[in-house]
Amino acid sequence: MDLMRVSYRLAVGPGESQARAERLALEQSVEVPRRVVRDRQVEERALGRVEAVTQLSETSALARIAFPLAATACDPAQLLNLLFGNGSLQPDVECVDAEFPEALQQALGGPRFGIAGLRERLGVADRALTCTAAKPMGLAPDALAELVHSFALAGLDVVKDDHGLADHDFCPFEARVTACLQAVTRAADASGRRCLYVPNLIGTPERIWRQLDFAQERGARAVMVSPMLIGLPTFWELCGQRASVPVFAHPSFAGVRRLGAELLHGTLLRLYGADAVIFVGWAGRFGTSREVCADLSARLRGDWGALRPALPVPGGGIEVENAADQVAFYGRDCMLLCGGDLQLDAESPGRRARAFVAAVAEASLATSA
Amino acid sequence: MDLMRVSYRLAVGPGESQARAERLALEQSVEVPRRVVRDRQVEERALGRVEAVTQLSETSALARIAFPLAATACDPAQLLNLLFGNGSLQPDVECVDAEFPEALQQALGGPRFGIAGLRERLGVADRALTCTAAKPMGLAPDALAELVHSFALAGLDVVKDDHGLADHDFCPFEARVTACLQAVTRAADASGRRCLYVPNLIGTPERIWRQLDFAQERGARAVMVSPMLIGLPTFWELCGQRASVPVFAHPSFAGVRRLGAELLHGTLLRLYGADAVIFVGWAGRFGTSREVCADLSARLRGDWGALRPALPVPGGGIEVENAADQVAFYGRDCMLLCGGDLQLDAESPGRRARAFVAAVAEASLATSA
Repeated sequence: MDLMRVSYRLAVGPGESQARAERLALEQSVEVPRRVVRDRQVEERALGRVEAVTQLSETSALARIAFPLAATACDPAQLLNLLFGNGSLQPDVECVDAEFPEALQQALGGPRFGIAGLRERLGVADRALTCTAAKPMGLAPDALAELVHSFALAGLDVVKDDHGLADHDFCPFEARVTACLQAVTRAADASGRRCLYVPNLIGTPERIWRQLDFAQERGARAVMVSPMLIGLPTFWELCGQRASVPVFAHPSFAGVRRLGAELLHGTLLRLYGADAVIFVGWAGRFGTSREVCADLSARLRGDWGALRPALPVPGGGIEVENAADQVAFYGRDCMLLCGGDLQLDAESPGRRARAFVAAVAEASLATSA
Repeated sequence: MDLMRVSYRLAVGPGESQARAERLALEQSVEVPRRVVRDRQVEERALGRVEAVTQLSETSALARIAFPLAATACDPAQLLNLLFGNGSLQPDVECVDAEFPEALQQALGGPRFGIAGLRERLGVADRALTCTAAKPMGLAPDALAELVHSFALAGLDVVKDDHGLADHDFCPFEARVTACLQAVTRAADASGRRCLYVPNLIGTPERIWRQLDFAQERGARAVMVSPMLIGLPTFWELCGQRASVPVFAHPSFAGVRRLGAELLHGTLLRLYGADAVIFVGWAGRFGTSREVCADLSARLRGDWGALRPALPVPGGGIEVENAADQVAFYGRDCMLLCGGDLQLDAESPGRRARAFVAAVAEASLATSA
């Protein structure tokens, strides 16, 4: 059976590391307590297994967990779930490395041009390459093109757009790309050497595909995006199925963990359109504080111009036994997400589910709003 | 002029906080040194301005920075750039909050259904709502549907797919959704109460749109995605332009900052298809270590099955003066990304650019590989 092996650094001491790794293997795959995995096929298809735990220090251990390849569905998004979906939300875990089996390499495919393809486009066989950015944002297309022209004449191999150049009113994408492509052509006519101008694509998938088509039709020979900002699965579709030119990746937004939980889950997701927002509450295994949960819920539900309230959906540790406390905390305008806990009773999945339903209904009566 | 105000927590002492905030305002907007912003229109359209800095403790300050609304282009992806694009990569910065002007609220639009729309679908006016997950991953469609049926009969309001349910060989999306929708209908026929089954959509945009269409055609009355995993701009297009049912957001992958830099920039981006990967090198303002840069570059370029090598593109602090050191460090198979530094000479953007080009060419000759 093909396996994907992933290494995690755990902030735990020697006495706890094995058990912590076992919990993580469940979290990243079946996301239920081990005893809820009763089906042999679930074990084979989906269950993560701890292969090794090495204590690195008194407070740190390295765990290697193997996941069945089948669980990834060889899908660019599902792969991320297995790697670091829920684990990313637990402050004592870092995903540090992974080994991808051959089948996954083939399914994702990697670079379509790579170093050799880029060097061929640049006509530079064997020296370090040079690149600068067309910026600052705020310049009009002509001013940016003038800058690109100067850099091209100076002999730079690549001039890429700043990652902040979007489809601005003051500098529309089409006008900018047209002007900058003309600028490198003008420079090439004068110098005999063609600089590679790399437009930045940014927006929703629909906008990015439109920008890509335009840029390619106008003769762009490479493009750039920020994968963590547009999303890695969108990035993959761009590279693997849409672009016919090399793709540069910019790191913008890649350090987003330090985006506040209240801002991301409370404000941004409502702004972007989430009708219901699942987040990891204070009751469970993710260590979110009560203050953050209260603030986040207030942001989702509070008055905010013409924006509809979005439903807070705390999860990650809701149990039948604490459901009433949750209702008392969040009030009635919430949805409690109770997962594996409902399946603890092997004989009857309905029994704990009915108890949960009853507890929430009863607690709602006792709660003012 | 409409402004977007963003609050950042800075890990700095009283003596440095103002200057640190000023640097961040540049980083998040024009991304060049202040003296390179010579154009009045750039100031008006794009430049971030520090409005207030409050020292919170000896080691922490809160800075409020205002960005012109125009700089966001009212685009869901560009907005993230302004909020926390490059700043997310600097370990002393946290993006803690933001105020979005009315125009941005209208452009993004927020929830299309919200709490009221969900309550209407659920037929529950005024109590806390209940939800569980159909899981574990690994079960076949019939087994999941059986579970959904039990939960629906038990009176749960919502049964959502586990976020790890993808389009697996052992549990294809279409078979799963069909079986689970039939299960809630069967339960409703028996109980008179309709449980809301929420399928998880996952994959590239193309796959997600296909899954959405299928689910809606079969009668799904809500869907779920993991926005940080598929990317917030893709999420926005889903909510605002594709879905005609409420959308649930799952937090998977939202804590991705602790994904190792080597793994993300060195391995994952190559696997996903990046031909060239821009990352923040050791020379500059992001504090990446030399060890990480060396490892990351080795991962991008080393042998890896049939995957083409991808080009390392260090940036974030490359200067004309340190370019030779960079070539000595990375070797010839790299591209140096030198940004605002090339524009320090107001008289001639070409002068420093030519010096940069020459330094890289010369250093390449002196470098073995």
